[in-house]
Amino acid sequence: MKINFYKNLEEKYKEISLLYEAMGILHWDRATIMPKNSNNGRTDQLTNLYVLSHRMLKDKKIYEFITKSEKIKKLNIWEKKNINLIKKEYVLNNALDKDLLEKISKATSECEMQWRISKEKNDFNSVAPYLEKVIKLRKIEAGIKSKVLNCGLYNALLNDYEENLNSNEIDKIFNQLLTFLPDFLKEVLVFQKKNKKILNIKDEIPINFQEKLGKTLMEKIGFDFLYGRLDISMHPFCGGSYKDSRITTRYNKANFVESLMGVLHETGHALYNLGLPEKWKYQPVGDALGTVVHESQSLFMEMQICRSYEFLKFASPFIKKIFKKSGKKWEADNLYKIYTFVKPSYIRVDADEVTYPLHVIIRYKIEKDLIEGNIKVKEIPNIWNMYMKKYLNIKPKNNTEGCLQDIHWYDGTFGYFPTYTLGALYAAQLHNKLKNKIPTIGNQIKKGEFKNLINWLRKNIHSKGSLSNSNELIKNITGEELNIEYFKKHLINRYLN
Amino acid sequence: MKINFYKNLEEKYKEISLLYEAMGILHWDRATIMPKNSNNGRTDQLTNLYVLSHRMLKDKKIYEFITKSEKIKKLNIWEKKNINLIKKEYVLNNALDKDLLEKISKATSECEMQWRISKEKNDFNSVAPYLEKVIKLRKIEAGIKSKVLNCGLYNALLNDYEENLNSNEIDKIFNQLLTFLPDFLKEVLVFQKKNKKILNIKDEIPINFQEKLGKTLMEKIGFDFLYGRLDISMHPFCGGSYKDSRITTRYNKANFVESLMGVLHETGHALYNLGLPEKWKYQPVGDALGTVVHESQSLFMEMQICRSYEFLKFASPFIKKIFKKSGKKWEADNLYKIYTFVKPSYIRVDADEVTYPLHVIIRYKIEKDLIEGNIKVKEIPNIWNMYMKKYLNIKPKNNTEGCLQDIHWYDGTFGYFPTYTLGALYAAQLHNKLKNKIPTIGNQIKKGEFKNLINWLRKNIHSKGSLSNSNELIKNITGEELNIEYFKKHLINRYLN
Repeated sequence: MKINFYKNLEEKYKEISLLYEAMGILHWDRATIMPKNSNNGRTDQLTNLYVLSHRMLKDKKIYEFITKSEKIKKLNIWEKKNINLIKKEYVLNNALDKDLLEKISKATSECEMQWRISKEKNDFNSVAPYLEKVIKLRKIEAGIKSKVLNCGLYNALLNDYEENLNSNEIDKIFNQLLTFLPDFLKEVLVFQKKNKKILNIKDEIPINFQEKLGKTLMEKIGFDFLYGRLDISMHPFCGGSYKDSRITTRYNKANFVESLMGVLHETGHALYNLGLPEKWKYQPVGDALGTVVHESQSLFMEMQICRSYEFLKFASPFIKKIFKKSGKKWEADNLYKIYTFVKPSYIRVDADEVTYPLHVIIRYKIEKDLIEGNIKVKEIPNIWNMYMKKYLNIKPKNNTEGCLQDIHWYDGTFGYFPTYTLGALYAAQLHNKLKNKIPTIGNQIKKGEFKNLINWLRKNIHSKGSLSNSNELIKNITGEELNIEYFKKHLINRYLN
Repeated sequence: MKINFYKNLEEKYKEISLLYEAMGILHWDRATIMPKNSNNGRTDQLTNLYVLSHRMLKDKKIYEFITKSEKIKKLNIWEKKNINLIKKEYVLNNALDKDLLEKISKATSECEMQWRISKEKNDFNSVAPYLEKVIKLRKIEAGIKSKVLNCGLYNALLNDYEENLNSNEIDKIFNQLLTFLPDFLKEVLVFQKKNKKILNIKDEIPINFQEKLGKTLMEKIGFDFLYGRLDISMHPFCGGSYKDSRITTRYNKANFVESLMGVLHETGHALYNLGLPEKWKYQPVGDALGTVVHESQSLFMEMQICRSYEFLKFASPFIKKIFKKSGKKWEADNLYKIYTFVKPSYIRVDADEVTYPLHVIIRYKIEKDLIEGNIKVKEIPNIWNMYMKKYLNIKPKNNTEGCLQDIHWYDGTFGYFPTYTLGALYAAQLHNKLKNKIPTIGNQIKKGEFKNLINWLRKNIHSKGSLSNSNELIKNITGEELNIEYFKKHLINRYLN
């Protein structure tokens, strides 16, 4: 009897995957409903699962199964890609020693704690030495990874979030954006002032009404509550485990606008997870692609679909009915103005669709220079403010509203920021393709028909898992590589009409 | 540098324990809030953790650490007991092979599925062959365990639920109960008819009112919601993980009486878990004792404390206030009559405090005879009905109300039933001791002062973990072995006064 080494490899990997599935629920529970003082135990549980999964990934049996599987000739493309992905994970995992990872974990957690204090006190200097240490250690890690991956330091960190992402490509794309966005922004502001009279909504909406609206629209779009939930957490996210997709939001009685769009954004993530290929569950090839494509799905839903006039035309009657409101300000015309209002601000998470990429580009430039050693930590505040002035034409009053606003760097995250904007570009290019393929899609959405939309996403993106990388995926679907023209076209259509 | 093998052993065991901690949350989630169709993934996660924990417990390193630890002289009694408990688990786990466990798992799951149909159709014969197979396999398992534990077949199964429990002891105690209970029951029914006029409560109480009452009384007793939750599930239980104690109940608008007492019963379990010795967390010596002592804690709370006149005197104002009710039927006098009403019935889970042990004894006698080969499966219905007539003086109309009512045997559970009643006996003996120690305890409860009560339980039971077995524990606390006189005295006081 011939032993099927490939099947053995899948079985081994499945054991590791299922630990992460369990962690998905434990993380969700912690962020949503765990009793306030039960965190020590939860940390113990999660750390234990994490340590075990790493130990299991170091198992030499896995390497044996990999090398023997690679020699099997009759494998299909999914199986071949699966072997590659497991191998990469195995090699990266074995290249990093436990000591370094523990040092990084300690340094980032100390830095994050100090950041909370420093941000509150508007005191960059007090966190700077911690950040220096974090960067030093993550550069060591990047050095090890860059040898395995045969790439530069910053690219090695980008790889944590999206396979094959590289900073040359990003530079090219972001430079194109920079030749367009700052001037476009000025135009939009002038146009907006002249043409858009907004009726502000300041009504307080009870949280149970907001929740009901969110759930109603999620279901209409195609989210199946037999396979997921909507709950509350401090920071909205999409989590859970396989075929158990749990999204969260936060409610503000005085601002339903943001909460609702948050829910719809996370719905995009959740639909991606729920549409992954069942045949390849618990295998890396069946997993979602990295954060670029994940963000493309949430931004496709939020920016391309749900902030559109057509969607708001469809949603307005539900909003009025569930909130028990009526009048002009609750009509699609006004809602659309609200949901497409542009205003340069200091804070990334509050930014609109037009200014958001500028926030991202500033962070990208700075973090890349930090990792590549071109700038020093102490220079961050000045460089930050210089870029803000240059691209957004505003200058933060202090570092709390500036380089201290985001947690990312202070908890060791480098290489994540650019994926937000790349996701937005992907979303625009995908939406353009969909409109070509199904020219009536806007009308369908206006009527609340989401079936063709969701089927198209499932067929072209969700069901593909990690078979292709993000570059290949966009090329397969749209016939060309990532092209910022679709995003530009989208912005011009939406903001100068 | 001398290696501390005992510390190594603790570390190894902690890794296994923490998998069970994670399973605790995953089980709770499944029973309460998991999306309806997400069960396949959850089963995969739980099976994986279960398989890993067993594999880790087979690790030869553990045996090495056990034998080397046993030679260390400077260990304290906790550490010594801990080694014994881990060793026992190791040996039992290694004695059972995976094939047998898988066969049992398959047979019980098939039998349970058939049981659901057979119960509905009142057709014992259709499930009998499945039950025969389950018993055959569990007897093989018991045979293996009995060699390791050096005890009889049924005792080996009892051991799953309480260390050192044995059927000779149980026979002795249950026979004593049988010389008392059936006649006592007749007396109570006569007395009750003559002396107790109950004002029935048929008011519908909204579920959020019932929940508020439950949470209010839980908090008053001493449950800290910073370390736990109260939720809804089909079958009430106490679960969660270390310092994260989650109880559940089910609500019936037309019957708050049962839901409330269910909550208070589970609160007894939860307080036990929350009071376990922190120093020994994640070690078997720091764990709760078996089901007898666990049940003693829930029944102490429910039967000894919360069904008492004093407690209902304290609770009545909260009930009236939260339910927005008034009048005689909501006063302690009437509530006490309701909560101590005795009526022989067919169904164990609906039984009162007096008849409950008789239900248990019937099941104990039958299951012991089944495992020891004294009776055959097909004889169960007749024997069941014969015992019901003999002890409770009623005869079920059909097997659905008789030997098909409980899931236990059909899902392979043998040896669990007696622990319910042993727990009730422990509770009565413990309560008697407490009253001797703190004679004003009844008055304290009437005033809503639970601090001394909880402290006494914490000091004497909760904080002891598994340092002593249940026999030793009751002797240490009360100065004598389990003695049914306290239970008898309790019943006479409560039901013939």
